[in-house]
Amino acid sequence: MVEIKKVPVRTLASGDSLHITVYDFKGSQKNAPKVYIQSATHGSEVQGSLVIAKLFEFLKENPPLGDVRLVPNANPMGLNQKAGDYTFGRFDLTNGDNYNRRYFLPVENMNWEQLKGLTEATLYSTFKEEMMKKLLEKKNSSISFPDALALTLQTLSIDSDLCLDLHCANRSAHHIYVPEYAKEDAAYFSIPFQIIMPKDKFGGAMDEVFFRPWTMLAEQLNLSQIKTQSFTIELGNHESISSSQAESDLAGILNYLRHKKVIQGEAEKKNPVNCPINQYMTIYSAVGGLVDYVAQPGKRVKKGDLLARILRFSDEPDFFEVKSPYDGIPIVFYSSSIAHEGIELMRILSDV
Amino acid sequence: MVEIKKVPVRTLASGDSLHITVYDFKGSQKNAPKVYIQSATHGSEVQGSLVIAKLFEFLKENPPLGDVRLVPNANPMGLNQKAGDYTFGRFDLTNGDNYNRRYFLPVENMNWEQLKGLTEATLYSTFKEEMMKKLLEKKNSSISFPDALALTLQTLSIDSDLCLDLHCANRSAHHIYVPEYAKEDAAYFSIPFQIIMPKDKFGGAMDEVFFRPWTMLAEQLNLSQIKTQSFTIELGNHESISSSQAESDLAGILNYLRHKKVIQGEAEKKNPVNCPINQYMTIYSAVGGLVDYVAQPGKRVKKGDLLARILRFSDEPDFFEVKSPYDGIPIVFYSSSIAHEGIELMRILSDV
Amino acid sequence: MVEIKKVPVRTLASGDSLHITVYDFKGSQKNAPKVYIQSATHGSEVQGSLVIAKLFEFLKENPPLGDVRLVPNANPMGLNQKAGDYTFGRFDLTNGDNYNRRYFLPVENMNWEQLKGLTEATLYSTFKEEMMKKLLEKKNSSISFPDALALTLQTLSIDSDLCLDLHCANRSAHHIYVPEYAKEDAAYFSIPFQIIMPKDKFGGAMDEVFFRPWTMLAEQLNLSQIKTQSFTIELGNHESISSSQAESDLAGILNYLRHKKVIQGEAEKKNPVNCPINQYMTIYSAVGGLVDYVAQPGKRVKKGDLLARILRFSDEPDFFEVKSPYDGIPIVFYSSSIAHEGIELMRILSDV
Amino acid sequence: MVEIKKVPVRTLASGDSLHITVYDFKGSQKNAPKVYIQSATHGSEVQGSLVIAKLFEFLKENPPLGDVRLVPNANPMGLNQKAGDYTFGRFDLTNGDNYNRRYFLPVENMNWEQLKGLTEATLYSTFKEEMMKKLLEKKNSSISFPDALALTLQTLSIDSDLCLDLHCANRSAHHIYVPEYAKEDAAYFSIPFQIIMPKDKFGGAMDEVFFRPWTMLAEQLNLSQIKTQSFTIELGNHESISSSQAESDLAGILNYLRHKKVIQGEAEKKNPVNCPINQYMTIYSAVGGLVDYVAQPGKRVKKGDLLARILRFSDEPDFFEVKSPYDGIPIVFYSSSIAHEGIELMRILSDV
Repeated sequence: MVEIKKVPVRTLASGDSLHITVYDFKGSQKNAPKVYIQSATHGSEVQGSLVIAKLFEFLKENPPLGDVRLVPNANPMGLNQKAGDYTFGRFDLTNGDNYNRRYFLPVENMNWEQLKGLTEATLYSTFKEEMMKKLLEKKNSSISFPDALALTLQTLSIDSDLCLDLHCANRSAHHIYVPEYAKEDAAYFSIPFQIIMPKDKFGGAMDEVFFRPWTMLAEQLNLSQIKTQSFTIELGNHESISSSQAESDLAGILNYLRHKKVIQGEAEKKNPVNCPINQYMTIYSAVGGLVDYVAQPGKRVKKGDLLARILRFSDEPDFFEVKSPYDGIPIVFYSSSIAHEGIELMRILSDV
Repeated sequence: MVEIKKVPVRTLASGDSLHITVYDFKGSQKNAPKVYIQSATHGSEVQGSLVIAKLFEFLKENPPLGDVRLVPNANPMGLNQKAGDYTFGRFDLTNGDNYNRRYFLPVENMNWEQLKGLTEATLYSTFKEEMMKKLLEKKNSSISFPDALALTLQTLSIDSDLCLDLHCANRSAHHIYVPEYAKEDAAYFSIPFQIIMPKDKFGGAMDEVFFRPWTMLAEQLNLSQIKTQSFTIELGNHESISSSQAESDLAGILNYLRHKKVIQGEAEKKNPVNCPINQYMTIYSAVGGLVDYVAQPGKRVKKGDLLARILRFSDEPDFFEVKSPYDGIPIVFYSSSIAHEGIELMRILSDV
Repeated sequence: MVEIKKVPVRTLASGDSLHITVYDFKGSQKNAPKVYIQSATHGSEVQGSLVIAKLFEFLKENPPLGDVRLVPNANPMGLNQKAGDYTFGRFDLTNGDNYNRRYFLPVENMNWEQLKGLTEATLYSTFKEEMMKKLLEKKNSSISFPDALALTLQTLSIDSDLCLDLHCANRSAHHIYVPEYAKEDAAYFSIPFQIIMPKDKFGGAMDEVFFRPWTMLAEQLNLSQIKTQSFTIELGNHESISSSQAESDLAGILNYLRHKKVIQGEAEKKNPVNCPINQYMTIYSAVGGLVDYVAQPGKRVKKGDLLARILRFSDEPDFFEVKSPYDGIPIVFYSSSIAHEGIELMRILSDV
Repeated sequence: MVEIKKVPVRTLASGDSLHITVYDFKGSQKNAPKVYIQSATHGSEVQGSLVIAKLFEFLKENPPLGDVRLVPNANPMGLNQKAGDYTFGRFDLTNGDNYNRRYFLPVENMNWEQLKGLTEATLYSTFKEEMMKKLLEKKNSSISFPDALALTLQTLSIDSDLCLDLHCANRSAHHIYVPEYAKEDAAYFSIPFQIIMPKDKFGGAMDEVFFRPWTMLAEQLNLSQIKTQSFTIELGNHESISSSQAESDLAGILNYLRHKKVIQGEAEKKNPVNCPINQYMTIYSAVGGLVDYVAQPGKRVKKGDLLARILRFSDEPDFFEVKSPYDGIPIVFYSSSIAHEGIELMRILSDV
């Protein structure tokens, strides 16, 4: 019922190899949407891997209607990269490439005209095949590891209709990146905070590379509907997993999958807070020192409220006060209390 | 009333310099004990720096009876060493030297005979002077940075009678390393767990290098009393500071200082759990994977109890169970859920 | 005659500050070009700093005609960032930002129309002032350290006419990045290999951010001439300085400065090899292992020639052969013989 | 003729495993000495791995008299640990343990009395068996990865008579660590510089842990001869391999193996320089800056000679001069020109 595959992704200097494990559940209904779910592409962001383990157990007991592909620990290189106790897996340590900015938009020289006459069913499958060809061509050229890993994950996901990329974010409240056209559906995830992206956004991330070709297709062919959806879901703090939290994370994902008819059952819609991505603001530390955070992830602040105090011992010990420049909701906090000037202290969903 | 000094500790490749800040409060009573308190020699372990900031405020309002010297952020090199969000300051990144194992025992070729005839007052001051001479001689030779930093901190502390080295320990319950002869006094810190060291222990740590010369003196001269005391105090989790926790940490330190007549007031004795250091056991991870911790720092477990599950995706997702080999109290946990085989998963005060 | 300034660029967690040192030589002729020279923005690439030290000595003895500003060790953060013996300064260790990709193009909302009526002299000074305004505005917002450092260096350089950014490149032959319109002048540097960039190239590097506004100005105003020039000069291997090599590096730079009438004397033109940047190809390692390099930086190879052997111990020891896919000249080699699959093994100026 | 084994040494967080490869050549003569050769336990020190590959080819063509076991890339964890282009494999990145200081002396509670009556042949095999028992017992306890790796390598080598541990040393001249009793034999390696260790030295390194039990045995049993030998051989610069250098390195090792009758043929004795280890002195950088090395590895200097200049830009560019405190031969140099105060600049075989 479930097929398990090991895909090699890198041979190391020692000759040993790194792999990803792929779990494939075959759906019982031919027309149900196909789902692709991966986790931990940034190495340290592992809560999604535990959620996938629990989803695996669920699907064994409750076979899905649509095909479901699960790829936990999607970046073994990043996961294994330790510096001290912590995991330094956000970017390639040789070239600085962010592992979630190297995905390749497979529409270069796409022949849109040729797609115009096709029936809906043929259109979608043809489009997927054309993209797969471009991915494989790129994959066979001489490329860097971050690019090769991205292409491997893309070839695993390109045939799906729904794509969930499970991340975490330092110390944070749960939130989700949502293409604007999928806002209503995203509410079913039970994630309290939504960051809304325009449908033409593309910066090389998995969610974007998944939906952007389809929004381009809709533009080119004047389609009224966009059949595919993808989301980056931020499941709280990185560097840790929590079994009780994973139950609640799983419940939200199952609710969405029910809503999309990938699995059976009734879904319930929630009312998340949402905020356009251009109002999602970063506050950088203005001074170096030790940060005592006063604000809390997910708790609303008013402009001028104290967000943090930064302790310095330049002369007498003093506390530099960081005040909120906005009304809004702080979502992501720097992982540490030890901060140089110019690090990313906090991100806020602002009312600006 | 308080004197502030900047002491340079290292010039960097860029030509810029790192400093430590030293705060000196003069005591009002000549015979009251002198106290030396430092924090954050391991870089990431910063809660003690916040406690020192609060102690500074207290002492400005409440001048001490004995001299008090405060050295927050005692290792600016370790504090500034970032890898990703976190602080990689436990050891020198060029040679691997642990910053709390490089202290130098200043008794080599000590002329014990010469000390035997002295009166108590002269004995103590002469012994301190002899040690200072040896420290300065070593400090003037060609030495590595970790050794130079250790010697700088030793020359700042050698004249004191009481020495508190404020650390933190990954994710942990508060605990304190105590030389056995100072066990009764240590109870005044209100730290719930004591790890008891024999009085001849020496592995290069600050607390040991401070008390060991005095226990040697007592041995050599058959003294019935050891006048000096030193402790490593582990103030919970590293990488973070907490203002509310700092109030409680400060209260414990003030209680001890009152008991030792460094500051005025009544002290109250507590009843900590204690455990000999040779029963303080480490559990290493037997497999690599994602760790879901079940036990909690400071909460007693029985032999055979489940401590953690380690999630692996080798075939179907499975959970490797880590069970306690001891009755005891887990105190320190690995900072991350991402673990290779053979990392230090947990430390337990065992009943063995 | 020379003015020396320290500019603070970052306060660290410890409270200490990092600085850059700026040396200003005042030129004797009002209309001679102004030159800006910086080095080591990637931390490990320090040969240029030694060249600047030697240029400083030269200019003290031989006062220039035009103003010369020197900024050695332009990135103290990157310079100080050690991991083991080596210097990990190519990118920010918290966010992965490449320090030479964060420069800010100061022409957003530029009012080109307003510039059209101006005389040449006024045009140039007005354009510089407009750009400076935009830089300062950006610099006063809440920004990350890599962005702040880039803006600091831009405000120091924006008033100049010629900009030399001194880099090094792993293990490499000397080479230079040249905007196509400045090809003839660049030949005076005596750098054997030129990589030619189109005049509209912009990826956030210092040379590009310096020339691109001026090529835009020329486009907008139909100017026949582009007055400013900028170059990235790669002075061989990183992580090391060589005094004898620095003499020869200095001679080339002085030859260019004579040609541009910044200093007095006759200049001599050289005949470098040049290659368009789109023919500058990267070869990634196809396997992990230990690399025995056969090709040498700066020595021509033919398609099919053996470039390197990669030693593996998977079964019997074997040597994987890396052959050149191009006729051309290998220029930059990976710094180490220890290579994972997918690292950048070599860059070649190809004849493709 | 040659047996090849893969030995797993660590499972990673991702579930992938690291291995070492073991090559066993069976000797044709029962009484010929057994040899164990390993390389690259410090990760970056890989020249010995290439030498082992060449030795493998030699032994396939020229079967040995004694058993030969080869273990290239003996520390895959250290080899794979990259930070930027370079390899950060000298110590464990979680706890700072130096991979060549964790070997375990397997003589605790050794019953020396029991060994006294035995014949020579029985004595040696019994002693090896007793040590193997202690190693296996330790290996089966809960231990850290560096300890587990050390024990794995020890169990692979304990049955041998000769042990060669192939290292490299930053930027350096070839040199060799030699227990004093094996000085004459060591001369056959054709390594120009010998560092002589007393026979009771033990700091946890492979060579020491191999010979120390045998020198203890000789002490306990008043044996006139020590049958086993071990050496740390430093084959020049780390981070690189060179095929031509490997030929010459191999020739030296074969010459020693001929001398010891492990392989057939005549050996030729050389005349290396030797120096007691307590005269092997380290010079630490007294200031931070950019180092222009003047001395060269392996070239004699006189006391007062200029060893290096350190470039600083504190005010005007200046060069801090490092002069030799000794007559002697600089052997190992810091790998980089970028130096903080207090790094290990140079090591000198001094005439002191």
